[in-house]
Amino acid sequence: MGCTATATNRAEELLLAFRETRRFTEKLASPLEPEDCVIQSMPDVSPTRWHMAHTTWFFETFLLRDAIPGYVPHDPAYSVLFNSYYNGVGEQFPRDQRGFLSRPTVRQVLEYRRAVNEQVEDLLLRGDKLPDSLLDVVEIGINHEQQHQELIVTDIKHVLSCNPLLPAYDAALLPRPESPAPRGWTEFEGGVHEIGHEGGSFAFDNEGPRHKVYLEDFSLRNSPVTNREYSEFVADGGYRDPRHWLSAGWSWVKQAGLERPLYWRRHEGKMREFTLGGLADICGSDLPLCHVSYFEADAYARWAGARLPTEAEWETAALPAPLLGNFADVGRLHPGGSGSAASPTRMFGDVWEWTQSAYDAYPGYSAPSGALGEYNGKFMCGQFVLRGGSCATPAGHIRRTYRNFFPPDARWQFSGIRLAKQLG
Amino acid sequence: MGCTATATNRAEELLLAFRETRRFTEKLASPLEPEDCVIQSMPDVSPTRWHMAHTTWFFETFLLRDAIPGYVPHDPAYSVLFNSYYNGVGEQFPRDQRGFLSRPTVRQVLEYRRAVNEQVEDLLLRGDKLPDSLLDVVEIGINHEQQHQELIVTDIKHVLSCNPLLPAYDAALLPRPESPAPRGWTEFEGGVHEIGHEGGSFAFDNEGPRHKVYLEDFSLRNSPVTNREYSEFVADGGYRDPRHWLSAGWSWVKQAGLERPLYWRRHEGKMREFTLGGLADICGSDLPLCHVSYFEADAYARWAGARLPTEAEWETAALPAPLLGNFADVGRLHPGGSGSAASPTRMFGDVWEWTQSAYDAYPGYSAPSGALGEYNGKFMCGQFVLRGGSCATPAGHIRRTYRNFFPPDARWQFSGIRLAKQLG
Amino acid sequence: MGCTATATNRAEELLLAFRETRRFTEKLASPLEPEDCVIQSMPDVSPTRWHMAHTTWFFETFLLRDAIPGYVPHDPAYSVLFNSYYNGVGEQFPRDQRGFLSRPTVRQVLEYRRAVNEQVEDLLLRGDKLPDSLLDVVEIGINHEQQHQELIVTDIKHVLSCNPLLPAYDAALLPRPESPAPRGWTEFEGGVHEIGHEGGSFAFDNEGPRHKVYLEDFSLRNSPVTNREYSEFVADGGYRDPRHWLSAGWSWVKQAGLERPLYWRRHEGKMREFTLGGLADICGSDLPLCHVSYFEADAYARWAGARLPTEAEWETAALPAPLLGNFADVGRLHPGGSGSAASPTRMFGDVWEWTQSAYDAYPGYSAPSGALGEYNGKFMCGQFVLRGGSCATPAGHIRRTYRNFFPPDARWQFSGIRLAKQLG
Amino acid sequence: MGCTATATNRAEELLLAFRETRRFTEKLASPLEPEDCVIQSMPDVSPTRWHMAHTTWFFETFLLRDAIPGYVPHDPAYSVLFNSYYNGVGEQFPRDQRGFLSRPTVRQVLEYRRAVNEQVEDLLLRGDKLPDSLLDVVEIGINHEQQHQELIVTDIKHVLSCNPLLPAYDAALLPRPESPAPRGWTEFEGGVHEIGHEGGSFAFDNEGPRHKVYLEDFSLRNSPVTNREYSEFVADGGYRDPRHWLSAGWSWVKQAGLERPLYWRRHEGKMREFTLGGLADICGSDLPLCHVSYFEADAYARWAGARLPTEAEWETAALPAPLLGNFADVGRLHPGGSGSAASPTRMFGDVWEWTQSAYDAYPGYSAPSGALGEYNGKFMCGQFVLRGGSCATPAGHIRRTYRNFFPPDARWQFSGIRLAKQLG
Repeated sequence: MGCTATATNRAEELLLAFRETRRFTEKLASPLEPEDCVIQSMPDVSPTRWHMAHTTWFFETFLLRDAIPGYVPHDPAYSVLFNSYYNGVGEQFPRDQRGFLSRPTVRQVLEYRRAVNEQVEDLLLRGDKLPDSLLDVVEIGINHEQQHQELIVTDIKHVLSCNPLLPAYDAALLPRPESPAPRGWTEFEGGVHEIGHEGGSFAFDNEGPRHKVYLEDFSLRNSPVTNREYSEFVADGGYRDPRHWLSAGWSWVKQAGLERPLYWRRHEGKMREFTLGGLADICGSDLPLCHVSYFEADAYARWAGARLPTEAEWETAALPAPLLGNFADVGRLHPGGSGSAASPTRMFGDVWEWTQSAYDAYPGYSAPSGALGEYNGKFMCGQFVLRGGSCATPAGHIRRTYRNFFPPDARWQFSGIRLAKQLG
Repeated sequence: MGCTATATNRAEELLLAFRETRRFTEKLASPLEPEDCVIQSMPDVSPTRWHMAHTTWFFETFLLRDAIPGYVPHDPAYSVLFNSYYNGVGEQFPRDQRGFLSRPTVRQVLEYRRAVNEQVEDLLLRGDKLPDSLLDVVEIGINHEQQHQELIVTDIKHVLSCNPLLPAYDAALLPRPESPAPRGWTEFEGGVHEIGHEGGSFAFDNEGPRHKVYLEDFSLRNSPVTNREYSEFVADGGYRDPRHWLSAGWSWVKQAGLERPLYWRRHEGKMREFTLGGLADICGSDLPLCHVSYFEADAYARWAGARLPTEAEWETAALPAPLLGNFADVGRLHPGGSGSAASPTRMFGDVWEWTQSAYDAYPGYSAPSGALGEYNGKFMCGQFVLRGGSCATPAGHIRRTYRNFFPPDARWQFSGIRLAKQLG
Repeated sequence: MGCTATATNRAEELLLAFRETRRFTEKLASPLEPEDCVIQSMPDVSPTRWHMAHTTWFFETFLLRDAIPGYVPHDPAYSVLFNSYYNGVGEQFPRDQRGFLSRPTVRQVLEYRRAVNEQVEDLLLRGDKLPDSLLDVVEIGINHEQQHQELIVTDIKHVLSCNPLLPAYDAALLPRPESPAPRGWTEFEGGVHEIGHEGGSFAFDNEGPRHKVYLEDFSLRNSPVTNREYSEFVADGGYRDPRHWLSAGWSWVKQAGLERPLYWRRHEGKMREFTLGGLADICGSDLPLCHVSYFEADAYARWAGARLPTEAEWETAALPAPLLGNFADVGRLHPGGSGSAASPTRMFGDVWEWTQSAYDAYPGYSAPSGALGEYNGKFMCGQFVLRGGSCATPAGHIRRTYRNFFPPDARWQFSGIRLAKQLG
Repeated sequence: MGCTATATNRAEELLLAFRETRRFTEKLASPLEPEDCVIQSMPDVSPTRWHMAHTTWFFETFLLRDAIPGYVPHDPAYSVLFNSYYNGVGEQFPRDQRGFLSRPTVRQVLEYRRAVNEQVEDLLLRGDKLPDSLLDVVEIGINHEQQHQELIVTDIKHVLSCNPLLPAYDAALLPRPESPAPRGWTEFEGGVHEIGHEGGSFAFDNEGPRHKVYLEDFSLRNSPVTNREYSEFVADGGYRDPRHWLSAGWSWVKQAGLERPLYWRRHEGKMREFTLGGLADICGSDLPLCHVSYFEADAYARWAGARLPTEAEWETAALPAPLLGNFADVGRLHPGGSGSAASPTRMFGDVWEWTQSAYDAYPGYSAPSGALGEYNGKFMCGQFVLRGGSCATPAGHIRRTYRNFFPPDARWQFSGIRLAKQLG
């Protein structure tokens, strides 16, 4: 009885979260023209329309097809078209050709969303009959869609940045200067610590199992590196001196002819930064630096006589920090601002912080079986862990144990730098 | 006086042609959704929106800027954004990134067109003051836009073909079977002939000067190769036997794993063809074959014991043929149909016919000076001449002396095969 | 006094090691024709001649130029030609063009070696005057040359394998079948362990500092995976099922069309293996599997219901194992044979064992300053650690703490698989 | 009877020519080290050893296998290894991997040559029994080997040029300055001319049939463009101004960052040129320019207010010129010198002269049947004709009707520029 009651409550909670999440996706897309929603400006970027359809495909494929006997798909062709990488589910439309598709149109995708929403909500309203395994799918589907909400923001930023007209996503978002955050360091004691998710509530598989690690004493900077600080590295010839860089990083810098973070550009004699609010001034900015790769983060840290934290250090240090910050719900979609101030050490929100830890399996980890098992485990190679969430991460999505991961040359996410040091 | 009168008449004629041409461009785009108009499915393809803007940029850059003192550009950024390849005019936005641009939107491009149209029409209405050199620019601008009308059709066909949903451009255009054209051969006498444009009316620079050539006796097939005929080549293993192919053609076939013309695909056990009307049946079709490359045309001819005509042969043979055929104005946008019957030997319209002639300069040719001189001469390398126009060519655009040209692996145009033979 | 005596002894010891090492390099090259010594069959491979010259360049650049006032280089052009990747030392000849160089010839390189040997030996003979820092360079130079000895073996194996004639390096080395090694598992207790080099004798910088790690209980297989065992994975469709593979591994398999380990090939209906002794039979072989990538090792382990060990587990388990095995000095240059039997758990020699640990910095690590600091630290990205040495590793070169590292798709080294399992 | 006598004489003549040709190949290779003979510095280049073996393979495959019943190949693996591009004969070892082969060694290839020579000579000595069709194969084999003699020279020049040591092929060949050739122009009358080979003696299939062409009046410069003249184009910014270049040529210049002919390089403040004799001074040189591509030749001609000749013009103009010049037999292996003076208009020898004619089939041409039919016809696409032979062409190999051909970006042959102009 209590169990059923709980199940109902869980279904109700999920229904609210589902509605909220689905609405937020469409809110993020609302400032865009239909033409904006089909562009793929590089293989890593997906068109807005694709994100809106793929997150819907997820509920249709993993929930509706299982939960509704004789389910008739909204459009059978969508099952290939909007599969991202689930080999277990079947064929996928090639990732780097998502920008070749103009149909279904934005309007048709919104209809697809409405049709699937209706059926998911129907299922959740008769919640007492839905098994826990399907409620789990709803929960993972909501978290999955939140991840794509962040990608909608970062991908459209990249799309718009490729246009010489530099159109703003929303001109009201142009960031303004603000006073610098405190620069001090905090020390942390080593020894055997525990990290990882302990279960009992939702988390991605890669966050567990909770396990012991041995740490040396270390210290962390109290706030992320700012544009002003990084400008000194640039001015000091940081991009021209191989001694600061990993070998692969130096090849990357030379081959691509890089001289600065992704969205910085010299414009009429001044260094400026493309933001979702348009081209902004960055001279002397005390906002947190964003859009740097692991290679840049690592080189900067070496130049600054420090290093990046390991993810175990980061998680240990984040334990006392309140889970507050400048997340996507604030609506700023750029680091800095009063949202940051909510978090004294600024460990959450603003920018994802590169750690020096390669993304791998925790001791005792094994991927869940079934198609959803492809979610995390198969990417454990060649990527680095980032922690803390960014100004484009939905607030309800982040956890202290949350492990984001990207290859070392990726920088179209809101990724920044937290410095660490060995003690003694 | 008479001269002024003529100038006025010429300006009036050009005004009518200008309006008609500008309207036809928009008519061709009218069945499309905004999302369709921004896609670039391969580097050769440009988005519909780009074609609509670039043809407008042409009038703005080469006419309005020269004709109107203190001309204020519609948007200064457009001058780079919509320059195709005119080094003389300045920088160009990279050709293979035209699909990264969502702005200006379709609506904004239509406004751009309207604004420029108005000013061009104003100029032409006060025709008595406009120097001949500027009227020439209007005429070349009209012909330039007609070329892009053909590209709008062929490019959107390619874009839609990349979508697994295989959306039709206009479902009413689905082609229907028809009875075969006569298959005979016509003989032509050799000796010294004259080819090329003799001046006195509009032609592209590369069509002249008119000059003598020496031809041997030859014969031409009375109609283009059909789908049915080409199917025999495919069934005979034509794509698997290197002996039929040029060395470069064989590398192309093997590397791309080709087995058939561009838009043919096996679907539910039958060979079908993607058309602007959707997926059509081609089993046993007597319509002219289209969308083959020079390599395929050459291999087919060798397999059939024949060869492709030279462009001098083609032009000589086309002399008596009426300049009628299945052109874009017919609105069929696919080879065949009653439009073809208008031309007994079907030398005009339906499909561009590959010749074995490399695209080069006629004796005495020199490129015009100025930016417009970049129009044709600089492409005289690595391309082959095609003749006769296609079902996507505006009727008023073609001439007997017209030289179209494409690289030997291009096949997204409506390109087909006319066979030739040596006599004696 | 004692100190001087020690220094002399160290110089004497180094002199013997230097002579021995330099001789062994030439012995490894002795079965080759001059033509063999200039080939670069892929960017990772360097020509034998290049290895012989580069190891000599190392002593010339880091020792002779510093130790001999007014030192006149053997040939000034060699300083660019034979620099591998030391940005601190100056320009480098492009790595992927080492196979474009026919000069200096093998004979000239041997002269270069002789000339440098003489001067190094002179220096070491007057040992009482040589500062410790230069003796350190001699020691690192010897270890550096030992690394290239292994590469001489693996690189020439790759070169010869590209030739359809499949020439043997030395036909006497054709491996013979032998009886299987014991297959059991050994359990190890977790808790806080110490790993890494503790100093006091030669080690590469990346092996330290010694530090604590926390391990869960685990078990290791007593011997590496054999050809016979891996054949079952191949026969079970291991290379065709994406569920076994990391995402990047599956892309690698598909793109390269892989079906088996690097040197396996189907020949006259039987699976065979190219070895330095020529083409050998592998049907039913109980020799350790070699020439698999990290991707293959990881996929095999998943298929087998196990996992790869971490490097901390490996080092902990290797603690009691004697540092004996089938190393290059045995002269077999292929896994297996009586050399392996010397080591009960076969943890040393035979094949490098892939660990699941990404190659990174130990806590407190910092790269040494100067050009030699480029040796290890700058490669800490995108690579995985291998442990234990192989049949191509000089016996004196290996240590329990030794960390070899390669990208996950590399498989031209003698790399194999040790399985691990979580306990409880 | 007379017929038999002739056949015998023909066999005797061919025997002498065969011996002479085979010897000359080995003479060209004689200054090289074994290491030089295996390098492939770009896909177009083949190792010397490969040329020596491939020309031998030609006689073995097309002559010995047909002429000797039960012929046992020297080594069965060679039939794939040394097949260049004859699909009719079977599989080919990939062209761009010829530099991965160290075996057979130079010594083994020389043995292969000796073994095949012996059998060919035996066949020719019993000449009265050999059918004409096989004598034809000997003749084409000799001509084929002469083509590879030229490639041995040009390919090893490229190989040595990639080495920073800039080793000379033969230091005695360093060219010296000389006085300029006369610069005048000669006029030629147009009308119907005949070009092409008329049969009756050896020629490649692509040189015929002889046929009529119609030419306008034209004039040709009396000598090829010199280094001094071309230096003015370079100094005038010729490589930085797109107006001089074909569109494809300009892309090529920009992408490769080109600034000068292939072997020119700035060295200690002066412009120098790598030659087979080593690095030579070219400041103010009046020697014919060499190692330019079609793109460079065409751009230079446009800059100079002229154009390149068509091949029909070239052949018509060359009719009265004696077939003498600086060919490979002179042993200079560089343009200029007294050899050039032998030919008043310098139309033969020194440098191949680019024509503006795309390489295509003459009217009535059809490729011979059988494997040897692959010799010329299948390359008739994307290449331009060069005429006249060079300092690396064997004297006995050239004809007035000889058509050499290369893609427009090739420049590692001794290719230069002859200017033409339209008259009137």
